[in-house]
Amino acid sequence: MIKAGIIGATGYAGGELVRLLMGHKNAEIKWYGSKSYIDQRYADVYRNMFQVVEDVCKDDNIRELSRQVDVIFTATPQGFLASVLDEDILSAAKVIDLSADYRIKDVATYEKWYGIQHQSPQLIGEAVYGLCERNREAIKKARLVANPGCYPTCSILSVFPLLAEGLIDPATLIIDAKSGTSGAGRGAKVANLYCEVNENIKAYGVAGHRHTPEIEEQLSYAAGCPVVLNFTPHLVPMNRGILVTAYASLKETDGELPTPEQVRSAYRKYYDGERFVRLLPEGVCPETKWVEGSNYVDVNFKIDPRTKRVIMMGAMDNLVKGAAGQAVQNMNLMFGERESEGLELVPMFP
Amino acid sequence: MIKAGIIGATGYAGGELVRLLMGHKNAEIKWYGSKSYIDQRYADVYRNMFQVVEDVCKDDNIRELSRQVDVIFTATPQGFLASVLDEDILSAAKVIDLSADYRIKDVATYEKWYGIQHQSPQLIGEAVYGLCERNREAIKKARLVANPGCYPTCSILSVFPLLAEGLIDPATLIIDAKSGTSGAGRGAKVANLYCEVNENIKAYGVAGHRHTPEIEEQLSYAAGCPVVLNFTPHLVPMNRGILVTAYASLKETDGELPTPEQVRSAYRKYYDGERFVRLLPEGVCPETKWVEGSNYVDVNFKIDPRTKRVIMMGAMDNLVKGAAGQAVQNMNLMFGERESEGLELVPMFP
Amino acid sequence: MIKAGIIGATGYAGGELVRLLMGHKNAEIKWYGSKSYIDQRYADVYRNMFQVVEDVCKDDNIRELSRQVDVIFTATPQGFLASVLDEDILSAAKVIDLSADYRIKDVATYEKWYGIQHQSPQLIGEAVYGLCERNREAIKKARLVANPGCYPTCSILSVFPLLAEGLIDPATLIIDAKSGTSGAGRGAKVANLYCEVNENIKAYGVAGHRHTPEIEEQLSYAAGCPVVLNFTPHLVPMNRGILVTAYASLKETDGELPTPEQVRSAYRKYYDGERFVRLLPEGVCPETKWVEGSNYVDVNFKIDPRTKRVIMMGAMDNLVKGAAGQAVQNMNLMFGERESEGLELVPMFP
Amino acid sequence: MIKAGIIGATGYAGGELVRLLMGHKNAEIKWYGSKSYIDQRYADVYRNMFQVVEDVCKDDNIRELSRQVDVIFTATPQGFLASVLDEDILSAAKVIDLSADYRIKDVATYEKWYGIQHQSPQLIGEAVYGLCERNREAIKKARLVANPGCYPTCSILSVFPLLAEGLIDPATLIIDAKSGTSGAGRGAKVANLYCEVNENIKAYGVAGHRHTPEIEEQLSYAAGCPVVLNFTPHLVPMNRGILVTAYASLKETDGELPTPEQVRSAYRKYYDGERFVRLLPEGVCPETKWVEGSNYVDVNFKIDPRTKRVIMMGAMDNLVKGAAGQAVQNMNLMFGERESEGLELVPMFP
Repeated sequence: MIKAGIIGATGYAGGELVRLLMGHKNAEIKWYGSKSYIDQRYADVYRNMFQVVEDVCKDDNIRELSRQVDVIFTATPQGFLASVLDEDILSAAKVIDLSADYRIKDVATYEKWYGIQHQSPQLIGEAVYGLCERNREAIKKARLVANPGCYPTCSILSVFPLLAEGLIDPATLIIDAKSGTSGAGRGAKVANLYCEVNENIKAYGVAGHRHTPEIEEQLSYAAGCPVVLNFTPHLVPMNRGILVTAYASLKETDGELPTPEQVRSAYRKYYDGERFVRLLPEGVCPETKWVEGSNYVDVNFKIDPRTKRVIMMGAMDNLVKGAAGQAVQNMNLMFGERESEGLELVPMFP
Repeated sequence: MIKAGIIGATGYAGGELVRLLMGHKNAEIKWYGSKSYIDQRYADVYRNMFQVVEDVCKDDNIRELSRQVDVIFTATPQGFLASVLDEDILSAAKVIDLSADYRIKDVATYEKWYGIQHQSPQLIGEAVYGLCERNREAIKKARLVANPGCYPTCSILSVFPLLAEGLIDPATLIIDAKSGTSGAGRGAKVANLYCEVNENIKAYGVAGHRHTPEIEEQLSYAAGCPVVLNFTPHLVPMNRGILVTAYASLKETDGELPTPEQVRSAYRKYYDGERFVRLLPEGVCPETKWVEGSNYVDVNFKIDPRTKRVIMMGAMDNLVKGAAGQAVQNMNLMFGERESEGLELVPMFP
Repeated sequence: MIKAGIIGATGYAGGELVRLLMGHKNAEIKWYGSKSYIDQRYADVYRNMFQVVEDVCKDDNIRELSRQVDVIFTATPQGFLASVLDEDILSAAKVIDLSADYRIKDVATYEKWYGIQHQSPQLIGEAVYGLCERNREAIKKARLVANPGCYPTCSILSVFPLLAEGLIDPATLIIDAKSGTSGAGRGAKVANLYCEVNENIKAYGVAGHRHTPEIEEQLSYAAGCPVVLNFTPHLVPMNRGILVTAYASLKETDGELPTPEQVRSAYRKYYDGERFVRLLPEGVCPETKWVEGSNYVDVNFKIDPRTKRVIMMGAMDNLVKGAAGQAVQNMNLMFGERESEGLELVPMFP
Repeated sequence: MIKAGIIGATGYAGGELVRLLMGHKNAEIKWYGSKSYIDQRYADVYRNMFQVVEDVCKDDNIRELSRQVDVIFTATPQGFLASVLDEDILSAAKVIDLSADYRIKDVATYEKWYGIQHQSPQLIGEAVYGLCERNREAIKKARLVANPGCYPTCSILSVFPLLAEGLIDPATLIIDAKSGTSGAGRGAKVANLYCEVNENIKAYGVAGHRHTPEIEEQLSYAAGCPVVLNFTPHLVPMNRGILVTAYASLKETDGELPTPEQVRSAYRKYYDGERFVRLLPEGVCPETKWVEGSNYVDVNFKIDPRTKRVIMMGAMDNLVKGAAGQAVQNMNLMFGERESEGLELVPMFP
């Protein structure tokens, strides 16, 4: 039985982690960390957990926690983990970080986009970027996993096979993403009130969203060259779900565009056998509702011969594959569990 | 392994049944019946099931179906099952009917409220009303279970303990219920279009909704006398969930109202040990979101000493405990499975 | 041209007041009071007002304000106006108060339900309860109008004709109300976040909501005897709208229930000629969407001969007839304007 | 007083036209045409119109209608108007067509994208594309106005100034658009049911949506060269609103990108003085909620120096500026009315 602790258990991602771990056969939560709700019953914060979780919330003492558990999940604000993590903790427990602290290899890039000084840059090298479909073997051996951001997970999985196979021109890549509101967190802000979000859609963080360098770094690995792209997130009036619509110019070979079959083959090369990536049938566009509550990412594409571009699409649940689900998938890999344990959730519709 | 067949597998309740049975260790679906989608892949109708269900939809041949499976679920329009069910079928397979055909013991009442002539009244006597918390032992032995309606399930479980314990006056009972839109089904009607339902709330079926006699019959058993009540359903702009707010005058004993403790004891008498009914802590009102996706019913109450009434409240997911979840719970009872098998779902929030 | 000032201009009711007054031919806003946004442009707080309102928000100096305008609207927290209002101000400008400070005639009742000591009880007697359809003549002569609460407006208008005509038993009255989320205000609270409200419905303030004594007082006037009732509000996932579903036992005369025609006549007696109350055709239930954005209240009823009760229903926009629209209607009456000036808005659908 | 007739008065755009014309000082509706609801009261189809519209729906006899009115609005399926319009009708009444029949100058392009043979190609030349901000003078003299599509209106107004001023490379233009569900019409289809749209977002018509050639044609005029682009619409769970996010590479001059001031000047050149286009302050992204119910289009942009692209954004209400509002604006121009008459609506928030 894997003993798990969560720091930041009362945010939306933390809550989803609890939901998923409750259904995991070989894991149990030993520590519900939540600075804001210390000594309060967890089920009083999330009443869906009434009679499911009996524990009380604890403080964020990660050192103490590392003595008591096998794995620590941190669903904390940027900078927290970097400021407390050290070899002592890492040698006592494995860490899966849902924040951005160890996702970006270049410290300067992290510090520029996040506006924070990194407190433990010496650990960045060791951290494995926890996109399971890309880094499975490294994750299995890792002590510290940087769980990918929600937008990056969906963006990378929608796009990378075509980059990796050289079918698209990296310089033309544009990612237009749409997210449900749980991605904005549970903080009490006017902008996230029901009446402000409902019946509304807007872009935000245009040309400056922090997930941009993370997406670029990972796609650069796939492309084998630096990728600089536009990433525009939008806030959508729904609880869960991210949809990515990405655009790129197809590369011609001898004056010929790649055929749909060639593009499809590129996706299949990487996703055949992947339990959680579903390449949809031809002509079917991904919809967030079809994956809600599950760890699936649905992807598909459409070639536009008029503009010689391909439109790449992906849909997933931002709290599952985009956060807690992927964290559990990483845990499974790190502890030799079946990769899909606790994650065999059928999407809920409607 | 229990072999199951579903007639009406492509309605919302049918779809939920598929979702739940996919997570059941000892059941497998052998027949996806859907008149409207014969020969189409089930996963083309419900894309959440892509790579989960590989089967194709079949016609509604219940006789043939009864030879192939152990249990038949019918999620069909009123009158369908009554027109085809007979001893031959019932001796081949158990039947759990999600329609109203066998819920009401008095044929005249059924025919009056539903405006249909009952085609197999001789089977009504045998049918067991499948409200597990009330009729557990009878269900275990039943061949034919009438799965309760969504509103009745929530209404009865919110109210019956106080009636059974004689704490409230049956003549004063009023049930004001609110339901998400999946309860209206997947039929293509203007009234159920997104733009007609969204940003809107209305009462419907006022003083005439078909679930009224079902609620009255079951509450009459609990009260030990005929109960006639007002039941008013409302359509709420959300996918899932039923909330019941019920009102009744408290009975005084020697000029004293029952205390909150006495009322709480009445609920506890019936619900202590019940896996799927959660009596909430004092002062906490049920919310549909806290049970979404799960088989729970959350109940609670508030005494108003000024009016000498008690307000009884209940919340559940109309597609789970109000339909497919309860159907699986009934199946578990009928086949000697653990009652909660396949139903240990933690509610999804947000 | 009526010069108007608003204190509390950046709450949802304040914002709606601005929207409505922009369309009023003979009124202009001279003062946008907002403690939270002093010196900020109003259009930066509510961007719908970009290029519509050029003003900057000012402090809440009501004395100064009273010298500059003809009418002051206060859309402020309970207790504010009572703590600052005096004869000096009232002799300089008329006041329409959207808070509860002067709605309840009995100070003890106010202080008990609101938990505040009333700072200017000497002015309560002068204040006119601004339900235009009830107190039109008194409003015309008033200096101080207590604009009714949202729930009370819809509840009273749905119910009072039957009480006034002696058709129902006041002791049996139960009001089950449902409101959109703008009624909860623009304060940054976790409970009002999009993800907490969306896909959810709950009762709140059960047997203790502050609008209860206001409803009771006004209905007592109509009934000619004290009315004590149950009032249960619910929070619905939509921006605007209140729906009231009220229940009462019909009074029999010589063993006969009132006929539908008699009940309809009671409504017509009070509402024929009323511009903003629409008695719907027989059998049509009010829906909040049909009145959204307008000053209408739609009402109707249904008799249940089985239980000898009548179900009374009303729908309105909580921010218009339930707050800002009624305030403008009151202003029109107080200043001799056409009562519907600025309020002839066709409801927006969808 | 302008006498107006509507064919297709019971679709969502037709309903909005009625709402707007009710507030127009110099127009009155003489004919509510609706094939589906002939002889039914209009207010029974749209209950918001109860006591507002007393008329009954009539058949689609456009010839007869042209004798009775000054202007005919057609909010009808593609191909209808083209199949009935002739010189006889046009000489009797002006026509504003909300369908696509006369929007595209090249018949072959129309026929290819719409899959319909055009029945009156001889009238295409005369038709004026009714984008008021572009073709004001021609509209004033027109007998036949092709009211622009919803997506094209928002797309063109967001993008054309930069094309016209040569600031962006037309070959790189990508338009990612998001629309509320009223754009899908009031037809009873499973895909538009509440439960299918709610909590969901998807792309549709990818690389094949019919508004593409309309956008391309108009932008070609602005650019002075053929424009071929990608246009991807998405369905968003809200009633109203279109948001456009458009991407293009900036053209460098002497190795320098245009400055934000230069880009802003390009917008100001075309929009200063435009009543219904609001260029937002720097850094403020358009949101659909801020224009809901009004005829405004809010636009803004952001330069990304990293990718040398500009992100252009626009938001409007698809039923107002995207359909009925623009139709009224066209009517005002054609009849010498003040252009904003009936359209001075303050957006409704929340």
